Amino acid sequence: MSLPRSMICKGCWQQMHLPVPLRGPASIPFRAFGIRPSRMNPNTCTICELMFTRVMKARQINVDVSVLFADLRGYTTLSQSHPATAVSSLLDVFYDECAEAIWEYDGLLNKTVGDAIMAIFNFPIRHDDHAQRAVRAARDIQHRCRHLGRELDFPKGAEADGSELGVGIGIDSGQTSFGEFGRSHRDLTAIGTVVNTAARAQSVAEAGCILVTGAVRSRAPAETNAGEGRAYELKGFDKPMELYAV
Amino acid sequence: MSLPRSMICKGCWQQMHLPVPLRGPASIPFRAFGIRPSRMNPNTCTICELMFTRVMKARQINVDVSVLFADLRGYTTLSQSHPATAVSSLLDVFYDECAEAIWEYDGLLNKTVGDAIMAIFNFPIRHDDHAQRAVRAARDIQHRCRHLGRELDFPKGAEADGSELGVGIGIDSGQTSFGEFGRSHRDLTAIGTVVNTAARAQSVAEAGCILVTGAVRSRAPAETNAGEGRAYELKGFDKPMELYAV
Repeated sequence: MSLPRSMICKGCWQQMHLPVPLRGPASIPFRAFGIRPSRMNPNTCTICELMFTRVMKARQINVDVSVLFADLRGYTTLSQSHPATAVSSLLDVFYDECAEAIWEYDGLLNKTVGDAIMAIFNFPIRHDDHAQRAVRAARDIQHRCRHLGRELDFPKGAEADGSELGVGIGIDSGQTSFGEFGRSHRDLTAIGTVVNTAARAQSVAEAGCILVTGAVRSRAPAETNAGEGRAYELKGFDKPMELYAV
Repeated sequence: MSLPRSMICKGCWQQMHLPVPLRGPASIPFRAFGIRPSRMNPNTCTICELMFTRVMKARQINVDVSVLFADLRGYTTLSQSHPATAVSSLLDVFYDECAEAIWEYDGLLNKTVGDAIMAIFNFPIRHDDHAQRAVRAARDIQHRCRHLGRELDFPKGAEADGSELGVGIGIDSGQTSFGEFGRSHRDLTAIGTVVNTAARAQSVAEAGCILVTGAVRSRAPAETNAGEGRAYELKGFDKPMELYAV
């Protein structure tokens, strides 16, 4: 189920009050100049992606964001015992469901790697309630992916033989460095402790589970108040970290 | 240190005997049609990236490749105790050194996520000795990154306070499904057991270490013969896997 797309770029409108057409006849001259919907969020444009070097005259900026990692649990096991076509259609569906959930809350689907995705909230489309949006997107991903195995052509019992499918999600909020990294490869992404923490939180989240940090909890109390805290030992962190299941 | 770039697209030349200019005046009309050096490998072009849907009329193809994952160890710890600018310049250098090493062996720098990169050998530029090329690129990455912390503005002792910098690398070879995944997001990558195995091998490789699977070893005996085997328990795999340090 995909939502209707924006006709103009939400990022350019919000930040420069420029109506950059993304769809329809008005978008044709823009496309000739390479301005088209971003693959990371179809409601923003390729200008938003390049805003750093061309518009902001900076390669990287510091920005307060929420970072979400989601990983398809059981995928490694499944890919050993099932045909590549079934596994790739599973991934197609997983990516698409994540994309729709993230875009619904104006997030950026920044990365997909194998069975995991990374999303950023509050850039290029700004929202003060980005932590809340990230939690809602996470819930939406869990909701959309709950029957992932069943809808596909997996033989019956695939989920029972130790290859249970499910999504583990981790979220953190705070200051990150966002922009282009690498000079010869150039890649648009966010880096910093927040990114690492979200990735580590995801790695300890069980299938069907969303783990958020204290920073997310204090910014989005209405969404996370019911969550129980537990201290986790995370790889690369000296001290155990308190994470909340929401 | 970057190597001279190819004047024509190596992928198009190899597969279609088409000389697609990437640089110089001859490339200008091509650029107007969006044909330019690929960000994943500057010696191939954007046609190669899109070859699946437009040229091969398939979204995904099965192809025998070597997959390499490299991860910057100590980065998570370091990013907690050092300024964002120092950390991002570290990542710039890491990405660039990896890119140069990978491109030197005609590999594709497919993904960068936080402190890790994923490379593919044998597509779109084909080489029968792709396993050997992946191992050589891995050695080159280790060689290039051995003084990573020292060259940057890290305070003295940064490497001694538990935040030792170093690169861990994992490689596997075999059949993968390569192409575009996701319908609304669309992302070019490889998936399959080989990708997962390489990622898991990287996760158990210590700083400065390259771990390869038996498949890599049997394809590139000259490069890996000296390697010692050890069984590792890898997440998501039922049985312990024999990996070789090279």
